[in-house]
Amino acid sequence: MTTTTSPGPSLVLYHAWASSASRKVRMCLYEKGLTFDATVVDLNKFEHHSDWYKKLNPSGIVPALMVDGHPLVESNFINEYLDETYPTPPLRPTDPMLLHDMRLWGKYIDDTCLPAIQKHNWMHHFHPMAREWSDEELERRLAAIPTANRKHVWYRMARDPYTAEELEAALDILRDMMDRIEARIAKTGFVTGDAYSLADIAAAPYVIRTEELAPIEVSAEKRPHAAKWWAAIKARPAYKAAHMEPFNDQCWSGWMPPT
Amino acid sequence: MTTTTSPGPSLVLYHAWASSASRKVRMCLYEKGLTFDATVVDLNKFEHHSDWYKKLNPSGIVPALMVDGHPLVESNFINEYLDETYPTPPLRPTDPMLLHDMRLWGKYIDDTCLPAIQKHNWMHHFHPMAREWSDEELERRLAAIPTANRKHVWYRMARDPYTAEELEAALDILRDMMDRIEARIAKTGFVTGDAYSLADIAAAPYVIRTEELAPIEVSAEKRPHAAKWWAAIKARPAYKAAHMEPFNDQCWSGWMPPT
Repeated sequence: MTTTTSPGPSLVLYHAWASSASRKVRMCLYEKGLTFDATVVDLNKFEHHSDWYKKLNPSGIVPALMVDGHPLVESNFINEYLDETYPTPPLRPTDPMLLHDMRLWGKYIDDTCLPAIQKHNWMHHFHPMAREWSDEELERRLAAIPTANRKHVWYRMARDPYTAEELEAALDILRDMMDRIEARIAKTGFVTGDAYSLADIAAAPYVIRTEELAPIEVSAEKRPHAAKWWAAIKARPAYKAAHMEPFNDQCWSGWMPPT
Repeated sequence: MTTTTSPGPSLVLYHAWASSASRKVRMCLYEKGLTFDATVVDLNKFEHHSDWYKKLNPSGIVPALMVDGHPLVESNFINEYLDETYPTPPLRPTDPMLLHDMRLWGKYIDDTCLPAIQKHNWMHHFHPMAREWSDEELERRLAAIPTANRKHVWYRMARDPYTAEELEAALDILRDMMDRIEARIAKTGFVTGDAYSLADIAAAPYVIRTEELAPIEVSAEKRPHAAKWWAAIKARPAYKAAHMEPFNDQCWSGWMPPT
């Protein structure tokens, strides 16, 4: 993570290594070649539910991007802000119809794919922790969570874990995502239109997790166009700089990659 | 509704009078002075769940805007498309920070205020219809609904109507929306920044329903800045042209306003 001063507004990213939304914003920042400061929000210590963090993002989720001290939230909107403010290299199509498609894709990823991947990620990491909580600790943890949706998911981690059927249904959503990606790449080479854009970046954190959970779904054997596109994305310097591996315990914590 | 041919791409709006999202798009189209064709989707006849409509909007919700035969969906994104394609008069701030704020506001309205207003609107109109369905008719209706969320809401209309507590909690969400509007108008005169924008348009269908449900919440006595802003919006020709009144049975049907 670079810490030199960039010209223009100061940028400070509050993020977590494991967070798909944080990963999207890191990819965009590195594609733009921007210098920024970064603070890891330690999810194991529930820093995202702390009072100081909720002042930056009232929803209590990562990431937040501070721009001259003003917090921006929602990864799709942060990335559009970055492309508007730092237009080179461009990461959005100029055709308004394609721009609409890019936004619709970002919403699909957030509304449909995020809850699916979350079931697998959280069962992997948070359920073993949360199931040990006493009723008192559960109550205290839930009280700090600002949104009904996240309260519900944390309750499930603690007392009502996702079933095998629910996890399989979530994987089906990711398989459907891969079908959509395959069809789009076969048609134009990229998720939206014929150039790399925020739509590809929005998909990437979900594709890497799908590959980790079910490698066959991202294989050339099963989806040849998507596999070729995915290999090219993983080869991008910005993908590597964004540190989307490894998906293990340390990426939920304050861990820092070796420099 | 105008039916003359406009230069540029052909625009055909599929919409419903009662739909808050449709109302947003109608307001934007009229602010832009665009000529467009329009087809009312008769919600009483469940045309939005029909196979022909789901080809335009796979979510089975209104509106959809056909642009040269290609459907655009999601009211916030449709309105951004319209502002990109027809930039005069401008309906988005040029400052990227304010543009981010406008998008965040649109998402807040959709994710938080829409489910709240929906509880009141649907109890008013759909519950008396759906509670009469036989189990067979309910099953048939639910089978035609493409999203889990809407299936759930329709099930509730038929068999498990919202309680008085849920309706009051929904009204509290709209009161909180009015508090946010009051604070924003007091500060800069408009929802986002110091000019009328898609953020004001996104709020308007929710403010008119709040006024109908609980007039005091939109009164000058309770929220003076918001009330002044609201009176100015209601005086706009585009607001009147968008036909956001009356909220009665006909606005769920194929009714056409007198020309």
